[in-house]
Amino acid sequence: MISTDIIKKILKNYESDNFSTLKNLNKIFMTGKLSGTGKLIILPVDQGFEHGPDRSFAINAEAYDPHYHFKLAIDAGMSAFAAPLGMLETGFDTYKNKVPLILKCNSSNSLTKLADQSMTGSVKEAVRLNCSAIGFTIYPGSEKIHEMIEEAKELFEEAKSAGLVCVLWSYPRGSMSKQGETAINVVSYAAHMAALCGAHIIKVKLPSNYLEPDSTKDSYINNNIEIDELWKRVEHIVKCCFNGRRVVVFSGGEAKNDEELINEIKAINKGGGFGSIIGRNSFQRPKQKAIQLISDITNIYKGK
Amino acid sequence: MISTDIIKKILKNYESDNFSTLKNLNKIFMTGKLSGTGKLIILPVDQGFEHGPDRSFAINAEAYDPHYHFKLAIDAGMSAFAAPLGMLETGFDTYKNKVPLILKCNSSNSLTKLADQSMTGSVKEAVRLNCSAIGFTIYPGSEKIHEMIEEAKELFEEAKSAGLVCVLWSYPRGSMSKQGETAINVVSYAAHMAALCGAHIIKVKLPSNYLEPDSTKDSYINNNIEIDELWKRVEHIVKCCFNGRRVVVFSGGEAKNDEELINEIKAINKGGGFGSIIGRNSFQRPKQKAIQLISDITNIYKGK
Amino acid sequence: MISTDIIKKILKNYESDNFSTLKNLNKIFMTGKLSGTGKLIILPVDQGFEHGPDRSFAINAEAYDPHYHFKLAIDAGMSAFAAPLGMLETGFDTYKNKVPLILKCNSSNSLTKLADQSMTGSVKEAVRLNCSAIGFTIYPGSEKIHEMIEEAKELFEEAKSAGLVCVLWSYPRGSMSKQGETAINVVSYAAHMAALCGAHIIKVKLPSNYLEPDSTKDSYINNNIEIDELWKRVEHIVKCCFNGRRVVVFSGGEAKNDEELINEIKAINKGGGFGSIIGRNSFQRPKQKAIQLISDITNIYKGK
Amino acid sequence: MISTDIIKKILKNYESDNFSTLKNLNKIFMTGKLSGTGKLIILPVDQGFEHGPDRSFAINAEAYDPHYHFKLAIDAGMSAFAAPLGMLETGFDTYKNKVPLILKCNSSNSLTKLADQSMTGSVKEAVRLNCSAIGFTIYPGSEKIHEMIEEAKELFEEAKSAGLVCVLWSYPRGSMSKQGETAINVVSYAAHMAALCGAHIIKVKLPSNYLEPDSTKDSYINNNIEIDELWKRVEHIVKCCFNGRRVVVFSGGEAKNDEELINEIKAINKGGGFGSIIGRNSFQRPKQKAIQLISDITNIYKGK
Amino acid sequence: MISTDIIKKILKNYESDNFSTLKNLNKIFMTGKLSGTGKLIILPVDQGFEHGPDRSFAINAEAYDPHYHFKLAIDAGMSAFAAPLGMLETGFDTYKNKVPLILKCNSSNSLTKLADQSMTGSVKEAVRLNCSAIGFTIYPGSEKIHEMIEEAKELFEEAKSAGLVCVLWSYPRGSMSKQGETAINVVSYAAHMAALCGAHIIKVKLPSNYLEPDSTKDSYINNNIEIDELWKRVEHIVKCCFNGRRVVVFSGGEAKNDEELINEIKAINKGGGFGSIIGRNSFQRPKQKAIQLISDITNIYKGK
Repeated sequence: MISTDIIKKILKNYESDNFSTLKNLNKIFMTGKLSGTGKLIILPVDQGFEHGPDRSFAINAEAYDPHYHFKLAIDAGMSAFAAPLGMLETGFDTYKNKVPLILKCNSSNSLTKLADQSMTGSVKEAVRLNCSAIGFTIYPGSEKIHEMIEEAKELFEEAKSAGLVCVLWSYPRGSMSKQGETAINVVSYAAHMAALCGAHIIKVKLPSNYLEPDSTKDSYINNNIEIDELWKRVEHIVKCCFNGRRVVVFSGGEAKNDEELINEIKAINKGGGFGSIIGRNSFQRPKQKAIQLISDITNIYKGK
Repeated sequence: MISTDIIKKILKNYESDNFSTLKNLNKIFMTGKLSGTGKLIILPVDQGFEHGPDRSFAINAEAYDPHYHFKLAIDAGMSAFAAPLGMLETGFDTYKNKVPLILKCNSSNSLTKLADQSMTGSVKEAVRLNCSAIGFTIYPGSEKIHEMIEEAKELFEEAKSAGLVCVLWSYPRGSMSKQGETAINVVSYAAHMAALCGAHIIKVKLPSNYLEPDSTKDSYINNNIEIDELWKRVEHIVKCCFNGRRVVVFSGGEAKNDEELINEIKAINKGGGFGSIIGRNSFQRPKQKAIQLISDITNIYKGK
Repeated sequence: MISTDIIKKILKNYESDNFSTLKNLNKIFMTGKLSGTGKLIILPVDQGFEHGPDRSFAINAEAYDPHYHFKLAIDAGMSAFAAPLGMLETGFDTYKNKVPLILKCNSSNSLTKLADQSMTGSVKEAVRLNCSAIGFTIYPGSEKIHEMIEEAKELFEEAKSAGLVCVLWSYPRGSMSKQGETAINVVSYAAHMAALCGAHIIKVKLPSNYLEPDSTKDSYINNNIEIDELWKRVEHIVKCCFNGRRVVVFSGGEAKNDEELINEIKAINKGGGFGSIIGRNSFQRPKQKAIQLISDITNIYKGK
Repeated sequence: MISTDIIKKILKNYESDNFSTLKNLNKIFMTGKLSGTGKLIILPVDQGFEHGPDRSFAINAEAYDPHYHFKLAIDAGMSAFAAPLGMLETGFDTYKNKVPLILKCNSSNSLTKLADQSMTGSVKEAVRLNCSAIGFTIYPGSEKIHEMIEEAKELFEEAKSAGLVCVLWSYPRGSMSKQGETAINVVSYAAHMAALCGAHIIKVKLPSNYLEPDSTKDSYINNNIEIDELWKRVEHIVKCCFNGRRVVVFSGGEAKNDEELINEIKAINKGGGFGSIIGRNSFQRPKQKAIQLISDITNIYKGK
Repeated sequence: MISTDIIKKILKNYESDNFSTLKNLNKIFMTGKLSGTGKLIILPVDQGFEHGPDRSFAINAEAYDPHYHFKLAIDAGMSAFAAPLGMLETGFDTYKNKVPLILKCNSSNSLTKLADQSMTGSVKEAVRLNCSAIGFTIYPGSEKIHEMIEEAKELFEEAKSAGLVCVLWSYPRGSMSKQGETAINVVSYAAHMAALCGAHIIKVKLPSNYLEPDSTKDSYINNNIEIDELWKRVEHIVKCCFNGRRVVVFSGGEAKNDEELINEIKAINKGGGFGSIIGRNSFQRPKQKAIQLISDITNIYKGK
């Protein structure tokens, strides 16, 4: 198993995992331009499920073709490609072993208002599709949170046994204000819950400096937790993910201008975050521009 | 496995499927008058479940007999015959290997107002009945959508493992207006969801040029997606089915006059659609007239 | 397997069933006074569950004893005896192989208003009790119809695999008027649904000439379906059961005077129905009178 | 298998049961002071679950210790001891084979108002604890009745296969008046349902002469069912339990004075009931007084 | 198996358990400073799940690191360490066999108001992580109590079969007043229910002398149960746990001053309680102070 000292140190934190899982985690860390650095950039493409194909792909029509995304992930040197079942099936043979795959096992859709997701994947299918990991989303704060966590539990237990890496998207919604969904005290809670659920890789949104007025707010004020600067908030999230013993990556959410995005990456890097999940900011622009942007981002993560 | 270059090219898009599934898909494409052309006409007969026997068959009383439909599918040279369990059981021996069978595994009924369906079939029964495929319906936008998708997931996973083709009827209803159920922005979303769920063959209704005012509408306007002509809409649906990597066929819905129907077929053909599912327009007229109509339709698909 | 030409012809309609199931169906058709005629009289005794023991048996107190019913079915020469688990258990040894048994696997009770039934039997228990068939009830039109159909699906799939005959009681209720529960357009729909669910024997109530004003009503008027005479309605139900390819039997419901009952039997016979399920009209009168009545009925079915 | 003619005659009614079940039923009938008489006295101790420990045991503080109840059942010569999992676990070794055990598999609690019970035992645990029987409670008339019956079905099916006796507590509640819960027409219905569910031993409350005004009331009046005297009501319940083919025992409910209790036992005996379940009337008094009371009761049942 | 007479006597109460379970229970009793005394101090760290990471750990920031808690349990000489899946996974290798582990299998979270918990662990995972026990929480009085008890039943049955100790947190809430959640009549009921559910170790909150006005209140007054002094209340809880045949430990709840805490420990010891679960009072202070406090507590339990 080819690795680097940085990666070996990260893997050591996963004390209970079997060799296959560690090998798959190593593979993700040793793929692409960030290979061996301990940082990750993951391409997720489930927006077609969550927002519909046109809102996702019309702006860059090549992206209607699933192969476009496989190629983008490979050509831009990303660490892994995450997508729902049907999309991964299309490139099974053409892109075999060219980029680690994450089977996104549940998805929501905007045709319904229900704060829930549908299971569309499984460990059995992830194994069939030669994936390195499975992905799952929970909504802390929603009415379905207990069921979602229990689905994650079943999935992760089976995945670990099958030697797969478990990636958990933890997106608060429901019980808090809209602004509160990215409040630092809410995101840190969601990240910690994901760690306790046994995720190997945690994915949260970048937190704002807003504090949702709930039972956890006072602990920020009383203990002087620094949240004014973004990199401090990233650092805090890393701390809430078992003090850095679990890998946490960040999404920026909606497409924004490149300067904002680059500044976010710098803050993630400075705060000790493990990398980014970049979807719309990569596939909603022409391929060469996307490759350039990813290149700029990897340079930041590589400290160039 | 006898095939044609056109079909081989289509099968190549199913990169992850096992040989049995590909053989069954090939069989459907190599059956009937459209054999080898890459186009399909499928006869579905679950209207007795969904609308009652009399609304379905009284106008052409021979159609009360299930064997009538087997014979119609065979004599008209259709690609496959889809029906619920009980109906397929009646012709198991008489029509063995004479037409590919699709076991329709769930059905609604109009004695209840619930926007849901009952499971009546299974992969085990499809195998027992020597079927080539299983069929399933989901209602994107309904309150039951998550459960329906998860039922489809279980069924498809087992079906693929058993070497069967998976056909998904994707019919929006519930959260949108009645008109919106066939709006181009709604149908395209429903078709894409079906592809992501791992369907081999997707079935949607022909979309209208109406745009349901939801979160996806703007992407049509901003990106100048052409939706005025029917063939352009068909072309767009094909694009939303993984840019043509998944087979999508269209239903016309309620019986209409032949001229309208023929014009629809021409638009499907021109737009690159893979064919039609024709139920009421075939079995609700005398058999010879139905055969003639199907013959006219196949001629269009064959470019005659 | 001893049979007659009439029965062999009926069995031929069950093209997909295994030899054990056909043997059990043959056994039911070859038992009792109607042996070999293609007609059936079945004794069902689940009224104790559905209406309580006293409303069922007080009028003929011998009927409190389950053995009374075994003996009645045997002595009157009926085709089969259907009852819930506990009742069949009492006669397992005494009446072994003396009359085909149908394990009624679900029952309602009038202590609750819920339009649902409780599962009390299973295929495993039916096999243990040496039964030839299992019975199940669905309520088309009720809020539980999807769950009930899915329970039937599971039960029937297992039963067919175990070589048992599947009998489906299809009793509309819930979405229609009280009068509509026996309307010809509702009963025909319920009978057809039962056939599509894969029942070998379908049981419905005798339909009235009333037309429930629902989406199916117009097809009766537009297509001149004859419903004035009872035998015509029976004929129509037979047609809706796959044009006679599935056995359909009728219940008369509440006890009535013998003349009415005899006229109903004549209509069933004339309309091509396959026989009767007679519960309260047999066990709620003294045994000799019941035997006489069943004798009169069998004579009608035998064309005497 | 040591037995008596009376017991052999009772066992003959259980025609479908395997030898292990019959052996266990025989063991219960051959234990204690009523050994071989065909009568039973069972000690049930789940009041701690249903009413809390203090309301159950404070009046006789020795009863907080589970071993007290094992010893009471043995020393008083009772036929069996019924209790939830945790209580039976405590005496597994000390009292092995000294008294037949009935694992009470579900219990309610008065901290909640829900008319339902929690499953706390299983056949697997009953086998592990060397029990002779499992016990279960249903609430005919409650909103949960269908689920409860289906839980009983699963449990009984497994229990019979494992050679255990099935005891069903059938306690009406929910749809009827408070007074109606012990009305003779309600209790007889509940007892009959228990028999149909396949119970070997049925437990109901002693019925009053009240008639709940429901659909079964008229059958009492029209058929002159005698319900004025308690022993006549007991006789009627026995008739509703398959005319005596199933064992039915009675509970008196809340503690009452001894004279009332003795009169009830006399009525049960005269009416042909199979015995009593006596909980609070035994363990809520000093042990010697309890033993004396049980002795008085057994003398009645033995006809002394 | 190294043990002491005190522990052997305790183990004898677990008459039905297999050798592996007894060995694990012995291991917990033979670990740490209270080794062999028959008393326990357990460190539970699921507050991060229940209250969020910051409210739990910000006051003593080292505690964000899961290894801190393993070390604290070991260095302070505690009997066992209880935590959710993800936290136990982090120390699997580093702290192997250094302290008995309890996998806390369900957790609530304060982002939702639902009075329920999510399953996050399993027996399979507990075995994989080399745990000695599994832990579970029920909420007597909540709307979910029946489901929670049934989840506990499934878990415990599997755990006992796998040789694990079963720890049940029994925390009333829902149907009673806020004050009633720690009322002596409510806590005693909750403790007894836990014992009946088959728990090996029961965990309740220290009860107050308040009596919730429910159906159990009168039994305290009528039977002169002494509840004025805390040690008397502890003694009563021990009595309600099968008269001391089951181990019951107490939590103090929110952090309080050390004097109050020490007085509580003295009362637990005097009343015959088996020890304490101490979470926030240990990890929310500097490590050396925590070790000192635990040392003071163990001295009380050792009678020094």
